[in-house]
Amino acid sequence: MNAMTASNLRSAYGGESQAHMRYRIWAEKAKKDGFPNVARLFMATSDAEEVHATLHFKALKDEVGSFDVLSGGVFGYDSTSDNLQGAIDGELFEVEQMYPAYIAVAEMQNEKAALSAYRYAIEAEKVHAELFTKAKEAVDLGKDLEAETILLCPVCGFISITGEEETCPLCNAKKELFKEY
Amino acid sequence: MNAMTASNLRSAYGGESQAHMRYRIWAEKAKKDGFPNVARLFMATSDAEEVHATLHFKALKDEVGSFDVLSGGVFGYDSTSDNLQGAIDGELFEVEQMYPAYIAVAEMQNEKAALSAYRYAIEAEKVHAELFTKAKEAVDLGKDLEAETILLCPVCGFISITGEEETCPLCNAKKELFKEY
Ligand SMILES: [Fe+2]
Ligand SMILES: [Fe+2]
Ligand SMILES: [Fe+2]
Ligand SMILES: [Fe+2]
Ligand SMILES: [Fe+2]
Ligand SMILES: [Fe+2]
Repeated sequence: MNAMTASNLRSAYGGESQAHMRYRIWAEKAKKDGFPNVARLFMATSDAEEVHATLHFKALKDEVGSFDVLSGGVFGYDSTSDNLQGAIDGELFEVEQMYPAYIAVAEMQNEKAALSAYRYAIEAEKVHAELFTKAKEAVDLGKDLEAETILLCPVCGFISITGEEETCPLCNAKKELFKEY
Repeated sequence: MNAMTASNLRSAYGGESQAHMRYRIWAEKAKKDGFPNVARLFMATSDAEEVHATLHFKALKDEVGSFDVLSGGVFGYDSTSDNLQGAIDGELFEVEQMYPAYIAVAEMQNEKAALSAYRYAIEAEKVHAELFTKAKEAVDLGKDLEAETILLCPVCGFISITGEEETCPLCNAKKELFKEY
């Protein structure tokens, strides 16, 4: 694998691993703050970031050893409204800056495994950003997010809060595979 | 909080988040390779790293915003013996290099919240390194790790594979709090 793609994949793995972790921490905070559906959305999205991190890690299977990894992270353990703003900022950074840059390099270097991992991730992050925005609008009105069913596609990290999809709109996986929160 | 301690805490959070994630991936691989007890040890240790990452993240509660985070990671998706060696290397790096350096800075800067998080982590990592070494010895003889009970202390990240402890030897938490794998 080309060195720049390998380095970018490690950074993407580091960023996704940190996002997975902070969404679990913010889920627990949302529950404490009285927003159980926002907590469920954070848990589902945490597991979506695990899907992405795992794709990146496996794409790096031949790059063995210890490395310094530079990745972006969002910090703060604050009100659920503020945490949701942090989540939106992190998702939009990935959608607008990080993944487009990594995709451009992987296309130039013809790195197919990396490209496929990045493309699943960037499409899922767009959905995550939308859902966190919806959640923040509710919380800022003092309400919980409206969501009876929250479903995760374990193939690509897509999330549904309506349960209306029969197959994943991003990767075509069947609804039977979806995990419920 | 002092800038160098805040930066170190972010790096520790990044490293623990990545370790949490790769142990889950290596657990699935150990299961596939026919080592279910090694898989259970990887899952318990993954959750121990979540305990450490959460301590670091909460110690950073007043350091809000987006940051570049530099942290050490171990990569490779290989035989379970090789993955265990990667796990041992990562744990020993934290025990011998990373946490001693971060502790020295936090002591000099009198940063009590960071020190308490680091001290729980470094003692638990010593135990993790020992248990992964035991697991690798078994796997290298073609056997699974011997472990009927695997317990995690959710306060400090200590792990027991004997179930003999009545309280956590690192943090004194009661056995009733321990999580079983
Ligand atoms: Fe992601
Ligand atoms: Fe996301
Ligand atoms: Fe999908
Ligand atoms: Fe740790
Ligand atoms: Fe550890
Ligand atoms: Fe403990």
